[in-house]
Amino acid sequence: MKTAVLGTGMVGQAIATKLIQLGHEVKMGSRSGHNEKATAWISNNGPAASQGTFAEAASFGEIVFNCTKGEIALEVLKQAGNENLKGKILIDISNPLDFSKGMPPTLLIVNDNSLGEEIQKLLPDTHVVKTLNTLTANLMVNPQLVNNGDHDIFLSGNSTEAKEKVSALLQTFGWGADHLIDLGDISTARGTEQILPVWVRLYAAMGTPMFQFKIVK
Amino acid sequence: MKTAVLGTGMVGQAIATKLIQLGHEVKMGSRSGHNEKATAWISNNGPAASQGTFAEAASFGEIVFNCTKGEIALEVLKQAGNENLKGKILIDISNPLDFSKGMPPTLLIVNDNSLGEEIQKLLPDTHVVKTLNTLTANLMVNPQLVNNGDHDIFLSGNSTEAKEKVSALLQTFGWGADHLIDLGDISTARGTEQILPVWVRLYAAMGTPMFQFKIVK
Repeated sequence: MKTAVLGTGMVGQAIATKLIQLGHEVKMGSRSGHNEKATAWISNNGPAASQGTFAEAASFGEIVFNCTKGEIALEVLKQAGNENLKGKILIDISNPLDFSKGMPPTLLIVNDNSLGEEIQKLLPDTHVVKTLNTLTANLMVNPQLVNNGDHDIFLSGNSTEAKEKVSALLQTFGWGADHLIDLGDISTARGTEQILPVWVRLYAAMGTPMFQFKIVK
Repeated sequence: MKTAVLGTGMVGQAIATKLIQLGHEVKMGSRSGHNEKATAWISNNGPAASQGTFAEAASFGEIVFNCTKGEIALEVLKQAGNENLKGKILIDISNPLDFSKGMPPTLLIVNDNSLGEEIQKLLPDTHVVKTLNTLTANLMVNPQLVNNGDHDIFLSGNSTEAKEKVSALLQTFGWGADHLIDLGDISTARGTEQILPVWVRLYAAMGTPMFQFKIVK
């Protein structure tokens, strides 16, 4: 499948590399379209790996991952373009973290709104599915690295069909179907984005980002 | 031990009943001091159970539990009185939930502040320990009811000694020592109070409040 990854940071590289390993084509999107980190990534990932501007990547991908920093996500998606994303699934992994006042970060959008909802409002013809935003990049694509993969992630989105397609893709990443919790529509992203404040404190208390949440009954 | 429980709702009744079962004396505090729900609770819990105003309860308890609704917690604690709580441990279970705009609730205090911190500021001579605010009342005092007790709660507070005393008390409630995660000072209550937005959505998605978070490594 042709896929796009917007963002060249740790999350973007982790997702893009996994997609290549799974046999997909990946165009990594950046502001300039000839990003240094994307170039290095391409050189390690063979002919199915390419790069372009955010708009070129969005146009290329049948499924598009938003792996940008939350503070620039809306601006990036404007550059990517409503027309290029129309009718497609956008998997939103971004969190609206504000590091400008130091550590730990606060949230730029919080409580009665979420970045997931703002993205859906910006792209009304796109199926936004928020997921994978509650754990460290390495675990997103290697869930078995903690507790033998026995831990959970959440999905928020208005389209059941889109969430089903994303669930199927996540299962190819190594996620068990019973570890994907559908919380409901995109407004439930308020819940998962507000996990970040305890996540950063758990990271500090535990001294490692290699942990995860498991919901037990 | 002489203990006090401020609040007569589900959380207050669960905590107070557990304390009686463990052999403690409990004075349940309410605005009037002769609350109908407290009277009913006393009639079921024998001579170690009593009630009084918030100030009378705070004065009575060596350890005091704040089990009031978050929207009134600061007003209740003003009534309880700085002098009555001086030098004592206050276990804060309240969450600043705002139901005024319907379900699911938002938070009255959020992001760069927390109710736990506001309570600590109001009561500078009291050792505030925030805990038990991330799960349903029945599980607070019966952790074995889900996953054989294999799940976690968090502690936030400025005094290590106070957190150790609270941890010891929680272990008598049935919590394993390795399931009590010390997140750090009282500002880490920002993290646990912001778990509530995902908690209420998990409750809706799962159809039961009988679930819990487990942190896996």
